[in-house]
Amino acid sequence: MGLFSKDIQSMDDLFVHTLRDIYYAEQQIEKALPKMIDKARNNALRSGFEEHLEETRGHIDRLEEVFRLHSTEPSTVRCQAIDGILAEADEISGEADEDVLDAALVAAAQAVEHYEITRYGTLIAWAEELGRSDCAALLEQNLEEEKAADAKLTEIAEARVNREAA
Amino acid sequence: MGLFSKDIQSMDDLFVHTLRDIYYAEQQIEKALPKMIDKARNNALRSGFEEHLEETRGHIDRLEEVFRLHSTEPSTVRCQAIDGILAEADEISGEADEDVLDAALVAAAQAVEHYEITRYGTLIAWAEELGRSDCAALLEQNLEEEKAADAKLTEIAEARVNREAA
Repeated sequence: MGLFSKDIQSMDDLFVHTLRDIYYAEQQIEKALPKMIDKARNNALRSGFEEHLEETRGHIDRLEEVFRLHSTEPSTVRCQAIDGILAEADEISGEADEDVLDAALVAAAQAVEHYEITRYGTLIAWAEELGRSDCAALLEQNLEEEKAADAKLTEIAEARVNREAA
Repeated sequence: MGLFSKDIQSMDDLFVHTLRDIYYAEQQIEKALPKMIDKARNNALRSGFEEHLEETRGHIDRLEEVFRLHSTEPSTVRCQAIDGILAEADEISGEADEDVLDAALVAAAQAVEHYEITRYGTLIAWAEELGRSDCAALLEQNLEEEKAADAKLTEIAEARVNREAA
């Protein structure tokens, strides 16, 4: 939610505030993904992260379009939640087995996806409430890609387990 | 994920580490909910938080049972992700309209639920991988209650919007 300020008086203020929060979060994720790509050992996981980095850049563009539709200059508000989630992803390293590190990376990435899923879900509901279906439609595209990324991470994790069991 | 340490070598180490992370998170949520109850203005939201506080105490008991089944002493590892999410919930206050504050509280609570949903989903998969269906069954009960709490928050938010529109 970012720093909740006394300037938030209306649902519209709250919408813009939360838009700034997810805009910050997407930018931090764009910075974090290259490090996660470097750490991933499993090919499917690495290429999944690479694909999601491209998608994340598209999400940032769509958020800028939402700001534009709303006639608001794009700006960020620091989001302690995503900072905490990404700090944990950043710490994943050590002498553990490659599969263990990959499993930890998948878990960290799914925590990121779930943060985005909850924020986009909230923003879409508020956009509809404010009569801004145009903004909601763009946010919906980001939400669907986040959900697909989360589902793909589950698939990658399951494939690892099945390979181990074989 | 908590502080990822060099002591994590195996999937079992990773499972216990993440169990400590969610055990910490549930305890922090138990401390945060009374403040959220005080702030909530909507009756359904307040009673939803009160009910979830009771459930959260049950989740902590179940996690202690999972530690016991695993023959591991219950302990926590600090989780920066939940600290960040709850810090944002803690900041919600000000001169805004009651409905705006309640909407922000719902959004913050849904971010908490989604963090727990992703963590329990991961832990259940790892418990099954480790052949610990007994642990997985207890974690599944917590997961189902978190999902139900998230769905209830969506219902409360929709009821507010429909009331506003009426």
